[in-house]
Amino acid sequence: MATPTPTRHRKRGHDPESVLSIAVGVFNERGYDGTSMEDLARALGVTKSAIYYHVPGKEQLLARALDRALDGLFELMADERAASGPAIERLEWVVRQSVRILVDRLPYVTLLLRVRGNSGTEQAALERRWEFDRFIGRLVIEAAAEGGIRPDVDPALVTRLLFGAVTSISEWYQPARGASADDLADALLKMAFGGLRV
Amino acid sequence: MATPTPTRHRKRGHDPESVLSIAVGVFNERGYDGTSMEDLARALGVTKSAIYYHVPGKEQLLARALDRALDGLFELMADERAASGPAIERLEWVVRQSVRILVDRLPYVTLLLRVRGNSGTEQAALERRWEFDRFIGRLVIEAAAEGGIRPDVDPALVTRLLFGAVTSISEWYQPARGASADDLADALLKMAFGGLRV
Repeated sequence: MATPTPTRHRKRGHDPESVLSIAVGVFNERGYDGTSMEDLARALGVTKSAIYYHVPGKEQLLARALDRALDGLFELMADERAASGPAIERLEWVVRQSVRILVDRLPYVTLLLRVRGNSGTEQAALERRWEFDRFIGRLVIEAAAEGGIRPDVDPALVTRLLFGAVTSISEWYQPARGASADDLADALLKMAFGGLRV
Repeated sequence: MATPTPTRHRKRGHDPESVLSIAVGVFNERGYDGTSMEDLARALGVTKSAIYYHVPGKEQLLARALDRALDGLFELMADERAASGPAIERLEWVVRQSVRILVDRLPYVTLLLRVRGNSGTEQAALERRWEFDRFIGRLVIEAAAEGGIRPDVDPALVTRLLFGAVTSISEWYQPARGASADDLADALLKMAFGGLRV
């Protein structure tokens, strides 16, 4: 055993993407406020001083992680399919795409959903999240005005409940169990738009 | 100003109910793990030593608070209306009552929904919560078997999404804004059982 073996962190060779991905896992497990730079260094398998080579600070990682979730939602809002056609159909499309983003970017969206506005970074993320919420709210109102949605429900409550079901997915979804983003979206769209009753 | 005025905590005269209610508010604001007996004493307006007159410890308060939420759900499960009649109608009744319990006991249910099993008390509460979840799951399966629910949805996903919408209420509901438990339940039942599409 005279040949020197590479140390664990050299073998791993972190790039910005793997640093971000590992950090988000730690944030979700310990809570962002409960995570120290030392915790991040340990999870990355690097020394406490080497972590600063990878990232200037915790809040910069948080900002990048939250953008990863929010950029997905903002691309969705800017999509042509969210802009033209009957509002009820756009709403169904937006629900399906929201579920897909949540599943594809699960740890990032989970982190976003826990943000309470405790710093400038969190506040900025919350404001982008609220912009998305308002976009959905307008779409539901539009669908009701066009007669695509039953008139006897409060659009504001429907928006909250519908996206309450979407965001709940981050609490219980286990990718390994087999349901795909499309399975989830199908079940939600059938329940919320078609209704469960036969 | 020679007359002695009563101190704040004497005026308040805490009974077990007000101690519990104030403690739950602190737990929800700071997180249970982030709350010290000193935080509780401050919120109650008593000295750190006087708090032990009111309550032996933090975990005992947690247990009582979680029982307050869980007892509501267990009474619901034991109710005659959850036991007889078509499963689809029992399911609708259970959804409505769940929303009512959530609204009536909002801070207690909010606390319950954040429990992750970090102690024996939390583990016991989670087990009771899972018993309720299984009860709902069986009811959805029964409704599907009786032909009351559309056959082309996975009952397990429906259970999660439907109660995802219910539990989301604890995240956004503001009692002062005017919607009652019945308004919330009406909107949810219309959406999930009747469907949004006209």
